[in-house]
Amino acid sequence: MADDVYDVIVIGAGPVGETAAARAVRGGLTAAVVEERLAGGECAYYACIPSKALLRPMGLAAEVGRMPGLGLRGPIDASAVLARRDETVSGYDDGGQVNWIENIPATFVRGRGRLAGPMSVEVTKRDGGVRTLRARQAVIVATGSDPLIPDVPGLREARPWTNREATGVQRVPKRLVVIGGGVVACEMSQALHALGAQDTTMLVRGDRLLARTEPFAGDLLAKSFQETGIDVRFGRSATRVERPTPDDPVTVHVDDGSVIEADEILVATGRRVAADIGLETIGLAPGRPIEVDPSMRATGVSEGWLYAVGDVNGLNLLTHMGKYQARICGQVIAARVAGLSDNLPAMRDTADYRGAPQVIFTDPEVCVVGRTESQARADGFPVRVVEYDMSAVEGAYLMAENYTGRAKVVVDEDRRVLLGVTFVAPAVVDLLHSATIAVTAEVPLDVLWHAVPSFPTVSEVWLNILEGYGL
Amino acid sequence: MADDVYDVIVIGAGPVGETAAARAVRGGLTAAVVEERLAGGECAYYACIPSKALLRPMGLAAEVGRMPGLGLRGPIDASAVLARRDETVSGYDDGGQVNWIENIPATFVRGRGRLAGPMSVEVTKRDGGVRTLRARQAVIVATGSDPLIPDVPGLREARPWTNREATGVQRVPKRLVVIGGGVVACEMSQALHALGAQDTTMLVRGDRLLARTEPFAGDLLAKSFQETGIDVRFGRSATRVERPTPDDPVTVHVDDGSVIEADEILVATGRRVAADIGLETIGLAPGRPIEVDPSMRATGVSEGWLYAVGDVNGLNLLTHMGKYQARICGQVIAARVAGLSDNLPAMRDTADYRGAPQVIFTDPEVCVVGRTESQARADGFPVRVVEYDMSAVEGAYLMAENYTGRAKVVVDEDRRVLLGVTFVAPAVVDLLHSATIAVTAEVPLDVLWHAVPSFPTVSEVWLNILEGYGL
Repeated sequence: MADDVYDVIVIGAGPVGETAAARAVRGGLTAAVVEERLAGGECAYYACIPSKALLRPMGLAAEVGRMPGLGLRGPIDASAVLARRDETVSGYDDGGQVNWIENIPATFVRGRGRLAGPMSVEVTKRDGGVRTLRARQAVIVATGSDPLIPDVPGLREARPWTNREATGVQRVPKRLVVIGGGVVACEMSQALHALGAQDTTMLVRGDRLLARTEPFAGDLLAKSFQETGIDVRFGRSATRVERPTPDDPVTVHVDDGSVIEADEILVATGRRVAADIGLETIGLAPGRPIEVDPSMRATGVSEGWLYAVGDVNGLNLLTHMGKYQARICGQVIAARVAGLSDNLPAMRDTADYRGAPQVIFTDPEVCVVGRTESQARADGFPVRVVEYDMSAVEGAYLMAENYTGRAKVVVDEDRRVLLGVTFVAPAVVDLLHSATIAVTAEVPLDVLWHAVPSFPTVSEVWLNILEGYGL
Repeated sequence: MADDVYDVIVIGAGPVGETAAARAVRGGLTAAVVEERLAGGECAYYACIPSKALLRPMGLAAEVGRMPGLGLRGPIDASAVLARRDETVSGYDDGGQVNWIENIPATFVRGRGRLAGPMSVEVTKRDGGVRTLRARQAVIVATGSDPLIPDVPGLREARPWTNREATGVQRVPKRLVVIGGGVVACEMSQALHALGAQDTTMLVRGDRLLARTEPFAGDLLAKSFQETGIDVRFGRSATRVERPTPDDPVTVHVDDGSVIEADEILVATGRRVAADIGLETIGLAPGRPIEVDPSMRATGVSEGWLYAVGDVNGLNLLTHMGKYQARICGQVIAARVAGLSDNLPAMRDTADYRGAPQVIFTDPEVCVVGRTESQARADGFPVRVVEYDMSAVEGAYLMAENYTGRAKVVVDEDRRVLLGVTFVAPAVVDLLHSATIAVTAEVPLDVLWHAVPSFPTVSEVWLNILEGYGL
């Protein structure tokens, strides 16, 4: 059938797949986008968007608590927050997103997409019907990732929450156990705790939160958690979980012999690339990330028709990086089809390799870009670091009473450019972008010196850091 | 007397003078700092610091008002805010600042400093005693500026408030008239209105607020003011003011024939360089800014011993720019004395000429850096602009219900770099620094494209703007 052939077929209609399709179509190609679940993807319904809707009131309430002259009339109204969360996820209805895709214009195909040999995608509909789409030019895999459930006896049977159920919470559990110490574990522990999960216990296998960030980030966060009454237990794992029926409480046996009873258990111990996408039909190993070159083309496939963007290529599990890769990918494909240069500045991924920016929307917020000190040293750079106690920034003192925060920059001493920046403090989410520009554009310190931060703002930490460096 | 000779004499111990002294001493010189009023200057006691202490609760309260699930228990507690303001200005005691200067180490000299011929500064003490300090290498003038009181009959006699009395408010007037539409007028009108000045009327001579920024900035701000009940009257001036005694109300006659009765009148119609600093003793015109070259050396004085930093050189009336100039100045002087290169990257002012960053801490905040569109066109650049409605940024929608904001960038089409950026929105103060780096470092748009903003944050406006540009 003629209408089953497209220049580009995108598997996955998350923000990443949508963006790739839009860029390819902008370049003059036709595209189909295949999605089994909701168009808009994990991010729009079960991750970034609803989690921030749950977190923002908590962060703002904390800011009010640090400002003399203001007081809240009571605790956060969880029902209002959940109602707004529902609004931010459009009531889990993807009509608007499907519309958006069709307006690209691209063809939206509802069903489970799976590679079926070169240039071929098999779509299984909900009713079991199978249809095959053929690509003239390229297939883009943007299937994302799924939460990983560790092999703990009884855990799977206990129907644990993942990011999906946690962000979609309808009734906040009074007693919550969280397994994990990464981004999802930290964000959801704090959000749910603020919304009423009075007894929140985190079981963290390692000795700090957010293990991949600078050590002080996890330490400051753990301190904040403990001060507000979240019970963070380091070096602890669940050994066994019991829940006779889904309506029963969960009993969690911990490796120190203790037992915790809770109303829900949230598992946030990492993610793995989406399974069963037919990689074996084109000679790739299933269940592993699809390796790509900086133009997002899969390196393990001959003839170069396969591209992979977003979580599935394993570069960075972040929506904004996936969308960035998708812009590159869609543009590169269109250029290659048209026989134009495929090597313009916007057609190569540099940002993933310099270190993606990431925000953890907790209180304090943790904002990082580039390499940590230990990564930079491991990569062989001649490293010098500067740290600064952000409570000494005059603008910070005006933002809050008892402001606490810390900044750290990692300098490449040979080139005098920044390799990485970390801010841990309240309301620094948008300060991060200054660091993202500095790191990505490799702006020399001697030039940054002339980018004068406004007084009195928290941004003046930049001045303090550069002075600390010796400028 | 031997102890009256210093390598460098700084007139004025505001943040700018202090910084210049510190940099000179760091370079191996001795320094004296002369100040008649409080060490720490206008900024620390009567401008930046206390104004932000008064404004921050208002801004935070507005944010709470836009977040479902949170509510304030009542209006802002003005007495708590004033108490915190007192704390931020150290109760108008400059002991800590004097200490800081002495620890540079530099000599602090209390008294009115005045140039008295080349390399000479005359200091008049409060008791009338006069002492002369001699400079071996340089004199740095950092005497700042004073509020300008326009020539309106009866105004001076009515003892109008300036930024000093407004930021130092002890009892918030219920009825307030504000003359002016610039930064101080806008910030103080909104702060005092939020703290209890229910009837606040602004008389603005022109047809918009913040006349030197992009037109939409003043328009958005005026809309916000009017919505909260501040009476902003454009194209209006006071023609006559009456106040029989300081305890009486003020009667303001307006040029449209209307009459306003108020408890206080605040005049915020600009500033002028500090008067009577002895410029005539060295052949310069009194009452005018001291013109300087990019190393902060006065151009009108032979032998190059005079430097001027901060408001007094007329480049930019902003604390952070003054401090920036002071760092350059102190370093340049030390290098010149030592016979070292005085032409290193940190020794020339580039930022003032590209357009200083400035924040107006209102709700919405107004944040600007570089040139406006009209400035850029007037300067002959090949200009293209991109504007973006920030309420369409996904991260903004998560920050607030009914978020409103707008961004505009001015692009130099020849070089594809940014000449100017304006953000008008809540909580964008620290987002500005990304623009400051981009404008100051002249980061090409094709490089900015790889500085990926984190999702979902307000910073993603950068992506929207670059896409709007065509990337």
